[in-house]
Amino acid sequence: MGKTILITGGARSGKSGIAETMALSFGRPATFIATAEAHDAEMAARIAAHQARRGEGWITRAEPLDLLGALAETDGKGPRLVDCLTLWLTNLLLAEADWQAAVRGLLAALPAQSSPVVFVTNEVGMGIVPDNALARTFRDAAGVLNQWVAAAADEVYLAVSGLPLKVK
Amino acid sequence: MGKTILITGGARSGKSGIAETMALSFGRPATFIATAEAHDAEMAARIAAHQARRGEGWITRAEPLDLLGALAETDGKGPRLVDCLTLWLTNLLLAEADWQAAVRGLLAALPAQSSPVVFVTNEVGMGIVPDNALARTFRDAAGVLNQWVAAAADEVYLAVSGLPLKVK
Amino acid sequence: MGKTILITGGARSGKSGIAETMALSFGRPATFIATAEAHDAEMAARIAAHQARRGEGWITRAEPLDLLGALAETDGKGPRLVDCLTLWLTNLLLAEADWQAAVRGLLAALPAQSSPVVFVTNEVGMGIVPDNALARTFRDAAGVLNQWVAAAADEVYLAVSGLPLKVK
Repeated sequence: MGKTILITGGARSGKSGIAETMALSFGRPATFIATAEAHDAEMAARIAAHQARRGEGWITRAEPLDLLGALAETDGKGPRLVDCLTLWLTNLLLAEADWQAAVRGLLAALPAQSSPVVFVTNEVGMGIVPDNALARTFRDAAGVLNQWVAAAADEVYLAVSGLPLKVK
Repeated sequence: MGKTILITGGARSGKSGIAETMALSFGRPATFIATAEAHDAEMAARIAAHQARRGEGWITRAEPLDLLGALAETDGKGPRLVDCLTLWLTNLLLAEADWQAAVRGLLAALPAQSSPVVFVTNEVGMGIVPDNALARTFRDAAGVLNQWVAAAADEVYLAVSGLPLKVK
Repeated sequence: MGKTILITGGARSGKSGIAETMALSFGRPATFIATAEAHDAEMAARIAAHQARRGEGWITRAEPLDLLGALAETDGKGPRLVDCLTLWLTNLLLAEADWQAAVRGLLAALPAQSSPVVFVTNEVGMGIVPDNALARTFRDAAGVLNQWVAAAADEVYLAVSGLPLKVK
């Protein structure tokens, strides 16, 4: 069975770089499953910078919603990196999908994976309580998602200033 | 002397669940000392969800301000869980009480406790600096409170994605 | 060669106190290199409180921009504490300086230091994504700065409730 690893951390904490190193440690090429969509110039620039840094050794694939399908199709073909779960959650909420059912479906599929999966997610709950209810709802959902995936993962790391701190 | 444990973490980091498991590890029933008051529907729903999850093995008691009295009355009757200190601080500030004196009084009473106490608190200082001065004042007070209680505690854990990371 | 240590943490996480203890463990007097400028009453009060807490054993020096020069002038005269890098970054951005070049210059000078340097910085990326683009830009720059300094440092600690959690 393929190992499941979760890398969590704040914005610009180096979590993607840590996750890329871990994914490649399982073999090459690795598949990069991007949940981001380039809706605006700021996001397009972030995606381009990420791709430039990754360089060789990667097959890139965009998948904003159907992570379950993406894992099924890429299994047995080397390690997968999913970057990131928080954006996937955002996409599910915007699509008015049942995000809890989607997460449960994803977790149910993990034990059958033969290739490793490294998930990247975000810490969003360590600031002051947000003013607006929508941000609080998102923050709560992201926290629940992180807890569920961490419970299912074999290893969990918190990225701090680019360094992985082992939590599980 | 009863052990003092502090569990800190962000919103939806699983800190309450970790604290409940630790409190029950000292024996049953445990007393749940809730500092929350159901001022609005959102908070009422959170309290109800917490109570439903805790289930059997708990005596619940609401105490928004007088934690010192609540600890005195429940001592010698099994473990106590105080959830949470950040809300207690909010209640003290809203009541225009001397929160620093209240915290010092609480800490002075800890060495004499014969039953264990598990405190839950919040990390609120790892986001961007808040725009308004009131939020900054609250954030500063919460940070000072956490430092003082952590210094007095026997064990301190940071909850990350539902997992306890030992800090002390 | 003098050791380089980085202490990161949220607001009021006790990072300055931890950094002061570590700097003094290398000898006395230590030089406190303050990047803060007392632009308003709130900041002036914070600076005064920090100075009062530090007490004896310190030579204080203000240096909002030229950290490289401050390190050069103080080398060989005991440990240095730089508090803090996030404010230095803010000062560089306000002065419309090339902050990335300034950071690279600082890092290039570290291996030649004969006296130890303890840097304090801030975690600002673990809250909800800020509404305004300027705050996001600052948060991103602060995260990059932290990663670069952490990569160059001999030891890195995350301050949690006044306690140092070793990351490197």
